[in-house]
Amino acid sequence: MYDIAKVRAEFPILGREVNGKPLVYLDNGASAQKPQVVIDAVTRAYGEEYANVHRGLHTLSNIATEKYEAVRGVIARFLGVADERQIVLNSGATEGINMVAYGWAMPRFEPGDEVVLSVMEHHANIVPWHFLRERQGAVLKWVDVDATGALDSQAVIDAIGPRTKLVAITQLSNVLGTRVDVRAICAAARERGVPVLVDGSQGAVHMPVDVDEMGCDFYAITGHKLYGPSGSGAIYVRRERMAEMRPFMGGGDMIREVSRDAVSYNDPPMKFEAGTPGIVQAIGLGAALEYMMGLGMENIAAHEDRLRDYALSRLGGLNWLQLQGTAPDKAAIFSFTLDGAGHPHDISTILDKKGVAVRAGHHCAQPLMEHLGVTATCRASFGLYNTEAEVDALVDALELCHDLLA
Amino acid sequence: MYDIAKVRAEFPILGREVNGKPLVYLDNGASAQKPQVVIDAVTRAYGEEYANVHRGLHTLSNIATEKYEAVRGVIARFLGVADERQIVLNSGATEGINMVAYGWAMPRFEPGDEVVLSVMEHHANIVPWHFLRERQGAVLKWVDVDATGALDSQAVIDAIGPRTKLVAITQLSNVLGTRVDVRAICAAARERGVPVLVDGSQGAVHMPVDVDEMGCDFYAITGHKLYGPSGSGAIYVRRERMAEMRPFMGGGDMIREVSRDAVSYNDPPMKFEAGTPGIVQAIGLGAALEYMMGLGMENIAAHEDRLRDYALSRLGGLNWLQLQGTAPDKAAIFSFTLDGAGHPHDISTILDKKGVAVRAGHHCAQPLMEHLGVTATCRASFGLYNTEAEVDALVDALELCHDLLA
Repeated sequence: MYDIAKVRAEFPILGREVNGKPLVYLDNGASAQKPQVVIDAVTRAYGEEYANVHRGLHTLSNIATEKYEAVRGVIARFLGVADERQIVLNSGATEGINMVAYGWAMPRFEPGDEVVLSVMEHHANIVPWHFLRERQGAVLKWVDVDATGALDSQAVIDAIGPRTKLVAITQLSNVLGTRVDVRAICAAARERGVPVLVDGSQGAVHMPVDVDEMGCDFYAITGHKLYGPSGSGAIYVRRERMAEMRPFMGGGDMIREVSRDAVSYNDPPMKFEAGTPGIVQAIGLGAALEYMMGLGMENIAAHEDRLRDYALSRLGGLNWLQLQGTAPDKAAIFSFTLDGAGHPHDISTILDKKGVAVRAGHHCAQPLMEHLGVTATCRASFGLYNTEAEVDALVDALELCHDLLA
Repeated sequence: MYDIAKVRAEFPILGREVNGKPLVYLDNGASAQKPQVVIDAVTRAYGEEYANVHRGLHTLSNIATEKYEAVRGVIARFLGVADERQIVLNSGATEGINMVAYGWAMPRFEPGDEVVLSVMEHHANIVPWHFLRERQGAVLKWVDVDATGALDSQAVIDAIGPRTKLVAITQLSNVLGTRVDVRAICAAARERGVPVLVDGSQGAVHMPVDVDEMGCDFYAITGHKLYGPSGSGAIYVRRERMAEMRPFMGGGDMIREVSRDAVSYNDPPMKFEAGTPGIVQAIGLGAALEYMMGLGMENIAAHEDRLRDYALSRLGGLNWLQLQGTAPDKAAIFSFTLDGAGHPHDISTILDKKGVAVRAGHHCAQPLMEHLGVTATCRASFGLYNTEAEVDALVDALELCHDLLA
């Protein structure tokens, strides 16, 4: 039984008002709110148990190291990764994907080599490949979505050619909520000897993930979308890819030995974690993932699927609202525009007057915006603490918008 | 008047015990403890005012954006930088220096081009240049310190040759406490058209810094050493270098426009800040720097200089203790070994039994260890909240070590 009242009570910010109205936070796609256990883990780490990790031998350093290193196992468990040494801790998916681009792809891409990606990728999974295009002649090969926003996994597989060196694909669109059959893509790519990077920034938030079963080579997550601290994250790197990958950032902790003339590197995953890490953010991320696993990812997904169904029925009843993305089994992320009625920015501003927080803009997905023929949308993105009453609040506020702007 | 009791009361962790003894925290060189104002800023940001920044139009996003962006100005003020657009926010000095290596140096280094650096650099200011050596034939040109650990700025200047593309130098050694006359080096390098990167990871903590007056091209700081959150930091980049620098990480926020075939970039400093930033860490760093400026950097430096003088007199009286680094006007950072008596790791462990936290190891400065002819030292590094009584506690614990290990 999913006790939504109990869940909501865990998030202090949900008790606040915005513009004199109860906060209706529907901007989870951009970043999620934090449960008290995460805030407490952060506060305790700074207030009672703080020191730098790894290189100390005193009590506080040992406590911090133990708590920090335990998070690697929590992330592995959360992602269904048997061997936690395949988890690299970092500041989020942007750093993770850039690490793959610089550390793995850069030394092995020749001019004309291809990256296959979908048109609904987030800029974090586009711009690093544009760097490869600009700097060493890589080719970006795009796969479109259909009119509902669904992505045919066979079309992705068919795009893999003899020059394809990598498939880089989202598991779940941050704009449309479309889920991608990444498992099928990974299996087919693997047969063709092509590694797959899965951007799990949204996927890991909204459904159970089993990376070992998925069979990808890289899987990037972002802590602040997972109800964890800003600046936290991780990336799974398959053992064989780790062995091929050169270090990304250089500094402390990632070395074995440094002299004037030479340097040798630590074993993975440390080889890819330079300098003092985001100690307290990682500890907070561990608390967030434990919290999610405590609720149960299946339960969270089922709750959000109910919200999706209800939101689809309510939003579908507004004939002046254009919903972008209606793929089967999509997640509870709704991008929309109103029939010639106002810029998304204005809509967002009006909704905010009613306490309803949504995002407006290109959502870091301009190629998708171009494909959809819009420059911006409003986006209401749901999380584990949202309710059907909040769907109603959104619809009420949208009706006001329509009255004001039509 | 520097009210040390009041200062100490601001740091909750300083009230705790370790192994039944009051904590004597002398591991500030690795990471500093956090005042309550920083912890409160973090807690408030997560508990009451959290959302993603920059791309939202709702109230919480506007609050978070305003607080986050205000930090840029605080850092600029702290560093004596008139134009805050020359400040790039990041996760710390390691990321900052790697950004310079990848974004500025990598595209302009030809085989045989040189980086001049001192033998007492931290690995964060060595390994990125070893990458350039390994990957594109750069030459690392080392300048030694003398027997006291002092660095002759003229020797650094003399090392600049026609192939020198960059001087990369610390302002203050994390092992020896040696201060470097970076201003003289910057002036001379500037005459020769050679940019200077100053690693301010330690310098900014222990003395007033005026970057505009210093005349460097890059100045990197690390938030967690500045009494701020882990995973926070910034780098100053001179306007002309920013114009020359290509983006480091790719992702959201750092772009102007992304299409399938092209990408254009945002204006600096945003061009160098990819993805959702460490929002709350940055806000916490702002609180930490305001706290330091509230105490006054001159006052902090004067307090630490008094501690240094007292520690030098006490440690100098132990004829079985070898102090590494006795340069004039050094900072209150003391590396030492005991006359054939125990490995630094054992010493650190014994001190910990008395509640005294010091670090033992190579301190991410192996070339310096080699120069000193040791593999490791113990290091007691002082901060703004330490006291003369804590120097006494250190000496008492060292005497116990000597009794036990001699």
